Amino acid sequence: MKMLINVPETVVADALRGIAAAHPELTVDVENRVVARRDAPVAGKVGLVSGGGSGHEPLHAGFVGPGMLSAACPGEVFTSPVPDQMVRAAAAVDSGAGVLFVVKNYTGDVLNFEMAAELAEDEGVQVAQVVVDDDVAVSDSTFTAGRRGTGATLFVEKIAGALADEGAPLDRVAAVARQVNGASRSFGVALGAVTTPAKGSPTFDLPSGELELGIGIHGEPGRERRPMMTSGEIADFAVNAILEDLRPTGPVLALVNGMGATPLLELYGFNAEVHRVLSERGVPVARTLVGNYVTSLDMAGCSVTLCQVDEELLRLWDAPVRTAALRWGR
Amino acid sequence: MKMLINVPETVVADALRGIAAAHPELTVDVENRVVARRDAPVAGKVGLVSGGGSGHEPLHAGFVGPGMLSAACPGEVFTSPVPDQMVRAAAAVDSGAGVLFVVKNYTGDVLNFEMAAELAEDEGVQVAQVVVDDDVAVSDSTFTAGRRGTGATLFVEKIAGALADEGAPLDRVAAVARQVNGASRSFGVALGAVTTPAKGSPTFDLPSGELELGIGIHGEPGRERRPMMTSGEIADFAVNAILEDLRPTGPVLALVNGMGATPLLELYGFNAEVHRVLSERGVPVARTLVGNYVTSLDMAGCSVTLCQVDEELLRLWDAPVRTAALRWGR
Repeated sequence: MKMLINVPETVVADALRGIAAAHPELTVDVENRVVARRDAPVAGKVGLVSGGGSGHEPLHAGFVGPGMLSAACPGEVFTSPVPDQMVRAAAAVDSGAGVLFVVKNYTGDVLNFEMAAELAEDEGVQVAQVVVDDDVAVSDSTFTAGRRGTGATLFVEKIAGALADEGAPLDRVAAVARQVNGASRSFGVALGAVTTPAKGSPTFDLPSGELELGIGIHGEPGRERRPMMTSGEIADFAVNAILEDLRPTGPVLALVNGMGATPLLELYGFNAEVHRVLSERGVPVARTLVGNYVTSLDMAGCSVTLCQVDEELLRLWDAPVRTAALRWGR
Repeated sequence: MKMLINVPETVVADALRGIAAAHPELTVDVENRVVARRDAPVAGKVGLVSGGGSGHEPLHAGFVGPGMLSAACPGEVFTSPVPDQMVRAAAAVDSGAGVLFVVKNYTGDVLNFEMAAELAEDEGVQVAQVVVDDDVAVSDSTFTAGRRGTGATLFVEKIAGALADEGAPLDRVAAVARQVNGASRSFGVALGAVTTPAKGSPTFDLPSGELELGIGIHGEPGRERRPMMTSGEIADFAVNAILEDLRPTGPVLALVNGMGATPLLELYGFNAEVHRVLSERGVPVARTLVGNYVTSLDMAGCSVTLCQVDEELLRLWDAPVRTAALRWGR
């Protein structure tokens, strides 16, 4: 498999150098693998730190900036970052108001963030954690006890980030982050397999003419394989799988997310079908985001994430944000 | 080849329905294939209309909004839109100050925009045109007399759009658009072929272990094929090919663009190499944009576009923009 890389061993470090070159508004510690807002710590503001394996860009480094994350810790591809990264990030962004760790529910990430929280507390940083577990496809999975954390991470980081920027205290920011996770559900579909730089060949075998329903963002197995379906059939399956678990009584945010190799032209067509299904099911959509946000390297496919919002969550979603990948408002 | 579509015949219409659902700030005429700012025409403002074959998203519909395009006309995949679309778009966005057509240099697009300009003038709309031809890879190509129009389209649309939003007259907006095109050069590389929905299989054959240097955004042939190169070697080749033709005497804007299927992680690593080469060649970079902006469906690969800027062009680049794919400032 051909890749736009030098050697597999330097993929993450090379990307961090490229982020530093493109985004002078960020500080990038290439050696210790921490990407932070240049103006951190912001006086009186709760810090938001996330991280996880690389290969899901723009998550998380693309979400660092005013109105969203204070810092991100990228691990090796599809591998949890180590506690030392998170401790450094927490120390770099803590203004004294404490730090919230946003953790996707994979065993390695949960253990490492837990250890980092203890170490940071020992150094005098107050830490709270939220574990994101929104993927309804499977109840346990490779590397996961419980549901996997996927697209809802974007909603948690955006909404909690907006609240932190308003000066809310740590317990309030953590409570809203948990509320957003609790109100969010995702379902993903693979049309092709993913290839990691280290392996150099597809990490799973998806026969020609089949798709996998309920795929994870590391190519972990989903619910089932079926003969190829239309965009409309996939939308029916994905949205209905979500609505078996989440029964919105009000409007939702919708993320129609590309896994990496699926063209934006197709994602917009799929978005039309997602809106059709939601309309048929009587679910109003307050805001929609279409694009590659929580990816799996070169995997072809898509996912849908819905988050039920009240007026306050919608206000925080609409609040200004200024990061590499999400930007709106003043 | 598996795709996230219903049937090939409705791909563009489905995407337009999806754009309408996601972006209430746009008016989308699905039947006549025109995407426009909802607030068009803006009193006293020159209208900016672009368009071209679909399959290059977010170009052009993703660049419609305040500070950039007034309207976009998407054709079928890799096929020019028809004059009727451009005439409708011009009529929809003309405030009386006239309309600038931004045309990528492909034979069909040039002919159809030319015809549309005549028809629109007959209807009383003053029209100017700029033809974008920035790709230094080949001097003539499939569907092209002269150089192909690729990544510079983004710079032309952003900078001319900012100037139009400031109320500049049509001749001035057109002159600056031509200045930006004249100051821009691009070079693209394919690591994999592109598959159109209509064909359903790769439109060219790129052997395993080879890449194509100088590829077009429709998979048109480039300069040569070589055994696979590293990211650093590709950056050396692409940037040096550009600098054989453009000799910047000041800072440049750099677009490090993904063709569709190449992960953002790899694009950022490639950006580090592009910056290294530019630094070695003594070319300062004023601003950098990394991501999928001028794509070729599911093609793996990348392109580099450089645009030499003076203070005025840089000011217009930095001016606020609010579109689906480019957004910054207030």
